[in-house]
Amino acid sequence: MRRITNRTFRDVLVEGPAVRAAGVHDALGAMLAEQAGFAAVWASSLGISAARCVPDASLLTMTEYLQAAVHMQRRVGIPVVADCDTGFGDTLNIAYLVHEYEAAGISAVCIEDKQYPKMNSFVPGQHALLDTAAFARKISIAKAVQTGADFFVIARTEALISGLGVDEALHRCHAYAEAGADAVLVHSRQRTSVEVEAFLDRWDARAPVVVVPTTYPDWHFDDAVKAGVSMVIYANQGLRATIDALRTTFGSIIAHGGSAHLEADLASLTEVFELQRLRQWRELEG
Amino acid sequence: MRRITNRTFRDVLVEGPAVRAAGVHDALGAMLAEQAGFAAVWASSLGISAARCVPDASLLTMTEYLQAAVHMQRRVGIPVVADCDTGFGDTLNIAYLVHEYEAAGISAVCIEDKQYPKMNSFVPGQHALLDTAAFARKISIAKAVQTGADFFVIARTEALISGLGVDEALHRCHAYAEAGADAVLVHSRQRTSVEVEAFLDRWDARAPVVVVPTTYPDWHFDDAVKAGVSMVIYANQGLRATIDALRTTFGSIIAHGGSAHLEADLASLTEVFELQRLRQWRELEG
Amino acid sequence: MRRITNRTFRDVLVEGPAVRAAGVHDALGAMLAEQAGFAAVWASSLGISAARCVPDASLLTMTEYLQAAVHMQRRVGIPVVADCDTGFGDTLNIAYLVHEYEAAGISAVCIEDKQYPKMNSFVPGQHALLDTAAFARKISIAKAVQTGADFFVIARTEALISGLGVDEALHRCHAYAEAGADAVLVHSRQRTSVEVEAFLDRWDARAPVVVVPTTYPDWHFDDAVKAGVSMVIYANQGLRATIDALRTTFGSIIAHGGSAHLEADLASLTEVFELQRLRQWRELEG
Amino acid sequence: MRRITNRTFRDVLVEGPAVRAAGVHDALGAMLAEQAGFAAVWASSLGISAARCVPDASLLTMTEYLQAAVHMQRRVGIPVVADCDTGFGDTLNIAYLVHEYEAAGISAVCIEDKQYPKMNSFVPGQHALLDTAAFARKISIAKAVQTGADFFVIARTEALISGLGVDEALHRCHAYAEAGADAVLVHSRQRTSVEVEAFLDRWDARAPVVVVPTTYPDWHFDDAVKAGVSMVIYANQGLRATIDALRTTFGSIIAHGGSAHLEADLASLTEVFELQRLRQWRELEG
Repeated sequence: MRRITNRTFRDVLVEGPAVRAAGVHDALGAMLAEQAGFAAVWASSLGISAARCVPDASLLTMTEYLQAAVHMQRRVGIPVVADCDTGFGDTLNIAYLVHEYEAAGISAVCIEDKQYPKMNSFVPGQHALLDTAAFARKISIAKAVQTGADFFVIARTEALISGLGVDEALHRCHAYAEAGADAVLVHSRQRTSVEVEAFLDRWDARAPVVVVPTTYPDWHFDDAVKAGVSMVIYANQGLRATIDALRTTFGSIIAHGGSAHLEADLASLTEVFELQRLRQWRELEG
Repeated sequence: MRRITNRTFRDVLVEGPAVRAAGVHDALGAMLAEQAGFAAVWASSLGISAARCVPDASLLTMTEYLQAAVHMQRRVGIPVVADCDTGFGDTLNIAYLVHEYEAAGISAVCIEDKQYPKMNSFVPGQHALLDTAAFARKISIAKAVQTGADFFVIARTEALISGLGVDEALHRCHAYAEAGADAVLVHSRQRTSVEVEAFLDRWDARAPVVVVPTTYPDWHFDDAVKAGVSMVIYANQGLRATIDALRTTFGSIIAHGGSAHLEADLASLTEVFELQRLRQWRELEG
Repeated sequence: MRRITNRTFRDVLVEGPAVRAAGVHDALGAMLAEQAGFAAVWASSLGISAARCVPDASLLTMTEYLQAAVHMQRRVGIPVVADCDTGFGDTLNIAYLVHEYEAAGISAVCIEDKQYPKMNSFVPGQHALLDTAAFARKISIAKAVQTGADFFVIARTEALISGLGVDEALHRCHAYAEAGADAVLVHSRQRTSVEVEAFLDRWDARAPVVVVPTTYPDWHFDDAVKAGVSMVIYANQGLRATIDALRTTFGSIIAHGGSAHLEADLASLTEVFELQRLRQWRELEG
Repeated sequence: MRRITNRTFRDVLVEGPAVRAAGVHDALGAMLAEQAGFAAVWASSLGISAARCVPDASLLTMTEYLQAAVHMQRRVGIPVVADCDTGFGDTLNIAYLVHEYEAAGISAVCIEDKQYPKMNSFVPGQHALLDTAAFARKISIAKAVQTGADFFVIARTEALISGLGVDEALHRCHAYAEAGADAVLVHSRQRTSVEVEAFLDRWDARAPVVVVPTTYPDWHFDDAVKAGVSMVIYANQGLRATIDALRTTFGSIIAHGGSAHLEADLASLTEVFELQRLRQWRELEG
């Protein structure tokens, strides 16, 4: 249960050809993602907010997002990529964020070009963006502040989310890569991958590209990789499966007056203890 | 999403005839339990530890358990009953615990008669108990420290878990009720309810009885109520369903190279937003 | 050491004629302020940031400021007035802030009309303000969200800090009072009270006025009250005395090779134990 | 303000001949200690508890002590030595403690041989100790769990505090050094250094010795070093100076109706901003 010798996200990405990350909101999700074969976890703002039943709208704070990411990273060997929304404010907030996350042992963060406070990208309506130069400056500050070579900054553009089109997304991602971004994330809420593929067709590969196919789940991982994607984040399927499972389980216990009929479908207590690494902790006691 | 006018656990229990509580480890679980019809939630030490992938063995701290309980209580209208293990130490710790939980708006706590540090009751092996008088003293201190009339203290005996038998469980629960416990929880890890029913047969009803039928799920809620139970805690079914759901979902995404085949079984993003009370928060903005 | 029956800030203010509050950054400061005779404490952003050696520039988060305020309020009987900077974002952040602070037992907050992220008002340079209507909307949302009658919202204008003059300060404070502010705080960094007195001369008393005479300490409390002030916050003198004391003490220990020469000037361990309420906690044990 | 390249406590100790550490309870104290010339800071349980106005009696939790230590270490270049009381429980708690502190970047911890829950050593009365073998086992587990070579474990004996005499203190410290302790701390509450000197006379130097001359401040640092001490902790003088300063300052503001007469003795706001490293943070912005 000790993972001080974690590989960083950079290590994992370099191994290639492409990385799959699972969105999670706690250490339990992170460990199950690791066991399933994901190479990284995405400490999702949506997920962490949803676990608190609070809108994903810059209400929970950097303190809480960092704590959640640290709780994950302390228990798994794969790297945590921290979803840092807009960076929680302006340039000074970015400098502080990088200092705090890096010192806490988080090796990768993602910052997006929406204005603070943000609203979740899948909520209908306007999503105002920072201008390109202002966000590029955030990225260059982030890179200037990091102290180790391993720290990894993903610049996320919401240009497609905001309906600004592929040209704008490319323009922004070029500027962000120029400013030092280690990768770019191009987010889309189209029902197909067409928009993202149009971006990839014209991307000159000056930095790895990350995608989040929440609304276009038909796009196979292998096809995304062929199209030039370096990382696919399955950002909220775990959260949505959890909601479905809890709703079903709780409803069924009430309806049946007990849980006996569910037992076959539930993880056993032995599995719970294994996920808690009980045996390994006890071995440390000698 | 604001629930300052929560009913206390005492209010809920008085309404009778009996209360069902769902064990949860975060606000999301608490809200889904409320929506399913549970009258209370159990802020489970096992669940909160498992969400951190840490053994349920007095490793997480009162700070973390209280924070988890508060995060739940801020988002639901049903009362949170906080699983407080052994009370995190000796009598001074109990006094401090009651002060802190009550001031934070948690209206019910449960304290057990194991020694600190404890081990989860379902882990095989010895579970050493405090002597009866020492634990009764903890209960009387807890009751003396509370300031409001509503605060509710459940005294949990691990006598059956420790193999000390029904006589000892009765002896202890009588002493705890005498010391002021508002209810007693008699925990058992037998495969049937026989042991607990034997307890109930001889219990003189000087305080409500709580049970946790994890290992004897065949006991129907209605039968438990007929046998004299006032509260049934379904302590870990939600946790175990979550593990199963995440394991299946994550494994399937890796195996299929995507999530399209899962979509029909996942909660929608709209459901996520509803659980985050996005619309209601936005209405507050006017 | 238990203060659940705290009087709220509204209670204290009503008693009149005027309230003195001491700026503090931890419970120890709050208790010493209470013992000295202050009627309230000001959970100062500058102080809380300084205790962390982080600029007072919206870097620490609502989580941390709320935690600091709660740590104070749990240990003193006088009300904590929480310095909430800009409200940590936009209107949704304000709604969330009020929900969280009120539920946590903090009975008064202060929100200022600077833009997020803010910079401390005493730092030279520009301090951009929200427009009046936008900030008034924040105030009206705060008041709409509170659930109890006691919750108290102070609207702070930085118009004088920003060099916009007394007219603008009056215009803004009128709008904020109109929007429901329970009091207004007019901040100034002039070397005398002239500017603030000019404001008070023309203020129509539709809400109590709060001042922070950091840069004009010559203004006697009685004179401020005569001029119409309802609350004077001595915001950072405790912090600055602490810095001076620690600098002197630490320097002297190094210089003298020990602390013997300082002993007469240090509080005794007995005093430390009294501030920790050791005897009272032990009495709870019976 | 970024100190990721901190030297570890082991680095500092090796430089010799002896280390002075200042007890502090927040980052501000840590930075002032660093500026004064201390080579390390002691994240004091007494201090951290006192800042919360809570008895130093195992009431605050590992979560809170670790957070305080991390807040310090993020802002100073000298190492933080974390006062970890009894290790917060039994052997599993020790394993967890070492994992968490080391992963968080704290390079040295001190664990004492009192039973959990502990009471501050200067509080009159009995202080029950673990038996020697049980505590030695805690030390050997701590050393087995650490992953880096730098992590440093100080074993503290309360034998003298408990009136068990120098023989017992030596016996225990030998056992602890044998078990792998990187240093031993021999605590005394005698009014002179005679008892500690008697210990040092007979100590065979198999591990460095740490002392805390709270009750025998006349012992000059140079004399302690000559007697064989490797580290002197000035554990609570800063806390006691803070209390004195706040009491005086707050009392005086009330008595004088203002703070003008105090200004000359208070640190300036410019000094506050310097301690917050405002200029350096802003330079990061470019």
